[in-house]
Amino acid sequence: MPMGDLLWPGDERAGTIFTDAAVLEAMVAVEEAWLGALATAGLAAEPVRLAGVVGPADLEALAAGAEAGGNPVIGLVRLLGERTGSTWVHRGLTSQDVLDTALVLCLRAALDAVLADLERQARALAGHVVAHRATVMAGRTLTQHAVPITFGLKASTWLLGLADATVVLRRLREDLPAQAGGAAGTLAATVELARDLPEPVQAAATALRAFARGLGLQGGAPWHTRRAPLTGAADALVTVSDTWGRIGGDVALLSRPEIGELREAAGGGSSTMPGKANPVLSVLLRRHALAAPALAATLHTAAASYVDERPDGAWHAEWDTLRTLARRSVVAASQAADLLEGLVVDAERMTARALEADETLRAEQRSMAAATGSERNGGEPPYLGANDLIIDNTLERAARVWEDLSWS
Amino acid sequence: MPMGDLLWPGDERAGTIFTDAAVLEAMVAVEEAWLGALATAGLAAEPVRLAGVVGPADLEALAAGAEAGGNPVIGLVRLLGERTGSTWVHRGLTSQDVLDTALVLCLRAALDAVLADLERQARALAGHVVAHRATVMAGRTLTQHAVPITFGLKASTWLLGLADATVVLRRLREDLPAQAGGAAGTLAATVELARDLPEPVQAAATALRAFARGLGLQGGAPWHTRRAPLTGAADALVTVSDTWGRIGGDVALLSRPEIGELREAAGGGSSTMPGKANPVLSVLLRRHALAAPALAATLHTAAASYVDERPDGAWHAEWDTLRTLARRSVVAASQAADLLEGLVVDAERMTARALEADETLRAEQRSMAAATGSERNGGEPPYLGANDLIIDNTLERAARVWEDLSWS
Amino acid sequence: MPMGDLLWPGDERAGTIFTDAAVLEAMVAVEEAWLGALATAGLAAEPVRLAGVVGPADLEALAAGAEAGGNPVIGLVRLLGERTGSTWVHRGLTSQDVLDTALVLCLRAALDAVLADLERQARALAGHVVAHRATVMAGRTLTQHAVPITFGLKASTWLLGLADATVVLRRLREDLPAQAGGAAGTLAATVELARDLPEPVQAAATALRAFARGLGLQGGAPWHTRRAPLTGAADALVTVSDTWGRIGGDVALLSRPEIGELREAAGGGSSTMPGKANPVLSVLLRRHALAAPALAATLHTAAASYVDERPDGAWHAEWDTLRTLARRSVVAASQAADLLEGLVVDAERMTARALEADETLRAEQRSMAAATGSERNGGEPPYLGANDLIIDNTLERAARVWEDLSWS
Amino acid sequence: MPMGDLLWPGDERAGTIFTDAAVLEAMVAVEEAWLGALATAGLAAEPVRLAGVVGPADLEALAAGAEAGGNPVIGLVRLLGERTGSTWVHRGLTSQDVLDTALVLCLRAALDAVLADLERQARALAGHVVAHRATVMAGRTLTQHAVPITFGLKASTWLLGLADATVVLRRLREDLPAQAGGAAGTLAATVELARDLPEPVQAAATALRAFARGLGLQGGAPWHTRRAPLTGAADALVTVSDTWGRIGGDVALLSRPEIGELREAAGGGSSTMPGKANPVLSVLLRRHALAAPALAATLHTAAASYVDERPDGAWHAEWDTLRTLARRSVVAASQAADLLEGLVVDAERMTARALEADETLRAEQRSMAAATGSERNGGEPPYLGANDLIIDNTLERAARVWEDLSWS
Repeated sequence: MPMGDLLWPGDERAGTIFTDAAVLEAMVAVEEAWLGALATAGLAAEPVRLAGVVGPADLEALAAGAEAGGNPVIGLVRLLGERTGSTWVHRGLTSQDVLDTALVLCLRAALDAVLADLERQARALAGHVVAHRATVMAGRTLTQHAVPITFGLKASTWLLGLADATVVLRRLREDLPAQAGGAAGTLAATVELARDLPEPVQAAATALRAFARGLGLQGGAPWHTRRAPLTGAADALVTVSDTWGRIGGDVALLSRPEIGELREAAGGGSSTMPGKANPVLSVLLRRHALAAPALAATLHTAAASYVDERPDGAWHAEWDTLRTLARRSVVAASQAADLLEGLVVDAERMTARALEADETLRAEQRSMAAATGSERNGGEPPYLGANDLIIDNTLERAARVWEDLSWS
Repeated sequence: MPMGDLLWPGDERAGTIFTDAAVLEAMVAVEEAWLGALATAGLAAEPVRLAGVVGPADLEALAAGAEAGGNPVIGLVRLLGERTGSTWVHRGLTSQDVLDTALVLCLRAALDAVLADLERQARALAGHVVAHRATVMAGRTLTQHAVPITFGLKASTWLLGLADATVVLRRLREDLPAQAGGAAGTLAATVELARDLPEPVQAAATALRAFARGLGLQGGAPWHTRRAPLTGAADALVTVSDTWGRIGGDVALLSRPEIGELREAAGGGSSTMPGKANPVLSVLLRRHALAAPALAATLHTAAASYVDERPDGAWHAEWDTLRTLARRSVVAASQAADLLEGLVVDAERMTARALEADETLRAEQRSMAAATGSERNGGEPPYLGANDLIIDNTLERAARVWEDLSWS
Repeated sequence: MPMGDLLWPGDERAGTIFTDAAVLEAMVAVEEAWLGALATAGLAAEPVRLAGVVGPADLEALAAGAEAGGNPVIGLVRLLGERTGSTWVHRGLTSQDVLDTALVLCLRAALDAVLADLERQARALAGHVVAHRATVMAGRTLTQHAVPITFGLKASTWLLGLADATVVLRRLREDLPAQAGGAAGTLAATVELARDLPEPVQAAATALRAFARGLGLQGGAPWHTRRAPLTGAADALVTVSDTWGRIGGDVALLSRPEIGELREAAGGGSSTMPGKANPVLSVLLRRHALAAPALAATLHTAAASYVDERPDGAWHAEWDTLRTLARRSVVAASQAADLLEGLVVDAERMTARALEADETLRAEQRSMAAATGSERNGGEPPYLGANDLIIDNTLERAARVWEDLSWS
Repeated sequence: MPMGDLLWPGDERAGTIFTDAAVLEAMVAVEEAWLGALATAGLAAEPVRLAGVVGPADLEALAAGAEAGGNPVIGLVRLLGERTGSTWVHRGLTSQDVLDTALVLCLRAALDAVLADLERQARALAGHVVAHRATVMAGRTLTQHAVPITFGLKASTWLLGLADATVVLRRLREDLPAQAGGAAGTLAATVELARDLPEPVQAAATALRAFARGLGLQGGAPWHTRRAPLTGAADALVTVSDTWGRIGGDVALLSRPEIGELREAAGGGSSTMPGKANPVLSVLLRRHALAAPALAATLHTAAASYVDERPDGAWHAEWDTLRTLARRSVVAASQAADLLEGLVVDAERMTARALEADETLRAEQRSMAAATGSERNGGEPPYLGANDLIIDNTLERAARVWEDLSWS
C-alpha cells in the first residue's frame, strides 16, 4: 500500500499503522511470542525466531490465499513452517488466536498514536482556555444568540471532552488482552502438548501468561466469542471522534465569513477560486465524525451475531472495520492537534459581536432581575456567571489527566 | 400509553420505565429538586412542592405543545408556574437542564432494572456452569464440529460477558450526572440570583451540588455539548445486548430439532401449526440485539453533530432514541433472565453427539500427538484442556461481581 | 397511546397512523380480506365480517399476550375465532402473512400522508423558486463565500430532491405487496382447503389474487424471506428525509443572526430567554434526518440475517423499526410543508451581502476572464451562469411530477 | 495498492476496480472529457489529450497533497496544467464535478462487474431450481420444522431476490449522472467562457451534454447537494447484499454436520484441524452482508448533513465509504457466483429428514383436514401446495430479466 489514500485525505498521517504489512508483522510477532511462551513453560525445547522470515514481499500471495480458509493465518502458518523447518509453529493456537492478537497489537499502536496527539490537543487547547478566559463572545443556542460566554469557556468544554476520552482510551490500552484458546477455546491442544509434564493445565496456563506478557498484553480467558475488547475500543474511538466532530463543527461554523471569530492557521485552497481559504482540517474532522459511528455499530452487530465457539461471518466482518476506524482515528487525532495548535482566535470580533448583540444577549439577565426585584444597569459588563469556576475546574482536571501539562 | 406494545412483544416487562408519564414525573422532580437547591443555597426563600401539580392528564397537551418550542419543558414550566403561583419555578435553568436530567433519571431506573435482571441471569447461569462443568458437547466453529468442549465452558463464556457488562453498567449508574448550566452553560442566571450574597459564584456552585445530591446524581460542569454520559450509557447497553444476542443465538441454534441440545422452558406456539415449540425468548433477544447497535450509533451521530452552546437538532434526536434503547434493554434483561432460569439442557444428547462425532472432534489432538510423537488411545475420554481452570476462574470472577452469588 | 409523544415533538401530526390501534385494525382487515378471498375462490362457503369484532379495548391483552408466541397474531386469531364462532378464521395463513400485510397497510397510510405533504412542499417551494429566480445571494462552499447564486436556484435544488423522492415513493406505494404463503411459503394449507375442487392450485392462486385485490395491494409470490418490499420503503423514506435534513440545515444556517437571510414564519420560544426565535421546524427536521438512516440500516441488517423459511429474530426486529421510521416520516413531511409554506426570505439582506462580498465572489469570473483575455467590468451585475436554465428545467420537471402544480 | 487485502479475504476478486489508480484514471478521463466537450461546444479551440499525462507514479504525491485543499483534484489539476502546458484544463469545473463524476465512473465499473456475476448466479441457481423442483425437504420456521417444501422452492426465493435486485441495479447503472456545475452549481464559469458566443447559456448546456455523452453518462442539473444518485446506488448494493447474506446464511446453516443438506464445492481448511471443511464462501458472504448496511447509512447521514452549495465534511465522508461498499460488492458477487455454481445438494438427506420429521411436518395439514372434515392418509406424499406454480412463475420472471437464461 502506498502511503496515503486518494479518497481519505490525510491518510498518510497514520503512516504504517494497521497497514497490511503491519498486520503481517504483528501476526508473525504473535506466532513468535507463542513459541517463546511454549519454551518458557517447558512445552517446547526452545523458541524459534520468526521475525524477518516473511515480509512485505509475501503479502500479495498471503492475501490472495486468505480466501481459501477464510483468513490469512492458514497460509502464513504454512509459510512459516516451510521456511523455518520448525514443526512447532502455531502448535496449540487457532487462526483466531493469531489474528485477534495481531489486531490488538495494531490497535495498540493506533491508540498510542491517538493518545500522543490527544496530549498535543490538550496542551494547545489549555493555552486557548487560559488566553481567552475573559474573551467575551456570544453564546449561541439553536443557532440563535443566547447569553454571553467566553471563548475560554467554550474551549474548556472541548478540553473536558478530550480529558474524558483520554481516561477511557488509556484504560482500554492497558487492558488490551492477548487471545489464546486453541480450536474451541479450551486450550486443549496446549494442555495436550504438556501432557507429559506433572501439571499439564498449569503448564498451559503458564504458557498463556508468558505469551501475554511477552507481547505486553493482558492474559485471561479466551474471548473468541466475547467481543467487548474490540467493541469497547471502537466505542471509545467513536466517543473521541464525537468530540473532534464537535470541535470541527464549531470551528467551521465560527470561520464563516459572516461570523469570522475563528480561523484555521492555513486555509485550504480551491481548484477554481483563488484566494478561498476553507477550514479544511475542520472539514476533515467532521468527515471522520460522520462516518465513525456506523463502523462501531458494525462491530456491535457482528458481536451480537456470534454463535458457536467461533462464528460464521461475524468474526470476519470485524477485521477491516476495526482497521478502518483505528487508522482514521489516528489521522483525525493528528489533524485535530494541528487544528488546535494553529487556531487563530479573533478576540476583537468575538467581543464586538457580543456587545452589538447586547440587547438580545442580556434578555435572560433582565428576566432574572425582574424576578429578584433588582435591576441591572445596561452599562455593566456582560454577566458571565460561573465562567471562571468552570474553567478552573476544567484546567485542574486536565492537569490531573496530563500530569505535566503546562499552559502558561 | 397502555402497557405493552403490539409490535415489540414483551414490552410490558418494562412497566412504566421511561414512558411519557415517567419522563413527565422526572421533569417535575428535577424542577422541584432545583427549587430545593436554590433554597438550600440561600438563593430562594423556601422550596416549592411540585409533585402532583401536573400529572398524566396533562400529557397530551404537553406533548402537543412541545413542538412550538421544540421541547416539552417550556409548556411544563408555564403550567407549573400557573398552578403554584410561584415565580421561582425554573429560575436559573434552561430547558436542556431539565430534560437532560430527567432523561438521566429515567435511564437510571432502566439501569437498575437491567442490573437486577443481570443478577438473576448470573445466578441461573452459574448454576448451569456448575451443573454442566463436565457435560461434554461438540465444540463448533464456522458451523462445523471442532474439538469437544463442555456446556459448562460455553455457559461460562456467556457468564463472563454478563460480568464484564455488569461492571461497566454499575460504574455508569453511579456516575450519572445532573445537568444544570442555564441558557449557555455559564450558570449566569443562577449567579445573578445570588448577586446580593457575599460570594455569588460559590452560592451557585452550592446550589448545583445540592441539586445533584438531591437527585442522587453527580454534579460537575454542564455537559450541554459533551454527550459522553449518554453515548456511554448507550454503548454499555448495546454491549450487554451483544451478549444477550449471542446467548439467544446459541440457544436458538442448539434448539434446532436436528441438534436438540438445549430447549427453552416453554416454547412459543404457532398460529397455524399445533405442537410447534419455538425458542421465543431467544428469538426476541436476537431481535433486540440486531436493532440495538443502530440506536447507539444514532446517539453518536448526534453527539458528533453538536455545535454552539446547544445545537440545532442533534439534541432532539437523542431523546426518543435513548428511551427506545433503554426500555428495550429492560425488556431483554428480563427475557434473558427467564430464558436462563428455564433453560433445559439435554446433557445426554450433547454427549452422545460429541462421541458420535469423535473422529472429527479428535482430529486436532491426533495432529498434536503426531507432533510430539505420543499417540493417544482412541478409547480415552475427550480431552478438555483447561476446561476446569477457565470455569473456576469465571466463577470466581462472577462471585466478585455479584458478591452473594451462590450456585450450589 | 395518547396522541403525541413527549420525546418526539410534533408526533401528533401523524395522528393514528401506525399506532397499535391502527395495526390491530389492519390485522383484522387482513384476516377479513382473506376470508373474503377464500369465499371468492370457492374455498369457503361465505365471507365472515370481522370489523369491530376486536378493538382498542383488546389492545393491552393482545400486546401482553404477544410474547408467548412471539407475535400478536396468535392471540388475535384466537379472539376472532372465539367471538365469531367461525372455524375459518386464519385458515391457510401464517402469522407472518397477517402481520406483514398489516405492516404494509399501515405503511401505505404513512406513504399517502407523506405524498400529500410532499405536494404541499412542492407547491410552496415552487412559489419561492419563481419569486426568487433573480434574488442574488452569496453561494457558499465549505462554509466560505463562493460565486453568487440566486435563492431561486438554491430552492430549485431542494425542489428537485423532493421531485425525485416523490417519484420513487409513488412507485413504491403502487407496488406494495400483500403477503400470503402459509406456514412455509408454499400455500400448502390453502391448496389443501381446495383439494376437492377440480384445480386446487389454481383455486389457491385465485384466492391469493382476490386477497391482494381486496386490500388494494399487489399479489405475487410470498416474500417471507425476501424483504426488499420493506427495505425499499425504508430506503425511500430515508432518501426523502435526507432532502428534508438538507432543507432544515440550510434554513437553520441562514437563520443565524449573523446571516439572517431566511426565517421561519414562527420561531420557537425559549424556557428562559424571552424574545428568542429559534428555527424550530428546521431543528426538528434535522433531528429526523439524523436519526432515520440507522433505522433503515436496521431493516437491512435484519433482511441480511434471514434464514430458513421464516427466521429467528430478524423478522421481529423489523416491525417497530419500520413503524418508527414511517410515523416520523409523516411528522417530518408535515413539518417540512409548514416550514416551506411559511418561509420568510429576506431578499434585501441576501443581495446586500452578495454585493458586499463582491470581491470574493467574483474571483472565479476574473480568473476565467484572464484565461480568455477578456476583462469584465466590476460594475456589471453578478454573473449567474445557467441560473434560469436550471430553474426552468426544474420547474418543468416539477410540473410533470405534480401535474396540476401551479405557482403563479 | 497490491492486489488483495489481508483483512478482507477475496478482495483480489475486485481487481483494479475503484483502486486509487482507477480513481485517478477516472479523474483524468473526466478532465479530458470536459476539454473535449468545451471544444465540441465551441468554447475552446481544441481538445487536449490527457490520458497518460499522470499515472500511478503520481499517486503517492497526489494523495499526500490532497489534504491541503481537502481533496485530490486540486493537485491533479496543477499537475495536468504543468505537464500539458494547457491553460484550459479544468476551466469551468470545480473539484466536486471531477471527483463526483470519477466516483460515478468507478461505481459503474463495479456495477458492471456485479451485474455480470449476478447473471452467473442466476444461471446456476435456475439450474438448482429446475433440478430440485421436486426434492422435498423440511421447511423450517423460527428454527423448528414446519411443513415440507422443496429445495427448488427455497432456491427460487433466492433467485427472485436476485432478479429484483438486478432490475434495480441495471436501472441505476443506466441513470448514472455526470456532475458539472462549477463553483456553486450555476455553470457560471462555463457560461463566462462562452460569453462571446451568440447564446452563452445554450453553449454551456451543449458542453454539459457533450461531457455526459462523452463519458456514457446522463446529463442534467448539477447534484452537488442532492446525493440520491450515490445513496440510491448504495441502497441497491446493500439490497443485493441482503440476498447474498441470506443465501450465505442458509447454506452455512444447512451445511452444519447435524443437518448436512447442502455443501460448498470446496470447504475451507483450518489452521489446526486437518479435514475440517468450512463453508467459507457462505461465511464471507455473511461477513459482507453484516457490514454493508452501516456503509449505506453513512452515505445517508452524509446526504442529510449537506448544507450550502457544497458542504463542510459531508461530501468528504462519502468517497471512501462508497468505494468500500462498491468494491466489497464486487467481491461478494463473485463469491456468490462461485458458491452457487459449486453448491452440492444432498437430495437424499433432505428427503430422508423430511420423511423422518413427518409427524411434525404434517401437523398443519391434519389441522386443515380436521377443519374440512376430510382426513388425509398418512401414507400420501408430502403436500407441497403451490410449489410448482411459484417455481414456474419465478423461472418465467428470471427468463424475462436474463433474456437468454437457459437452465436445461
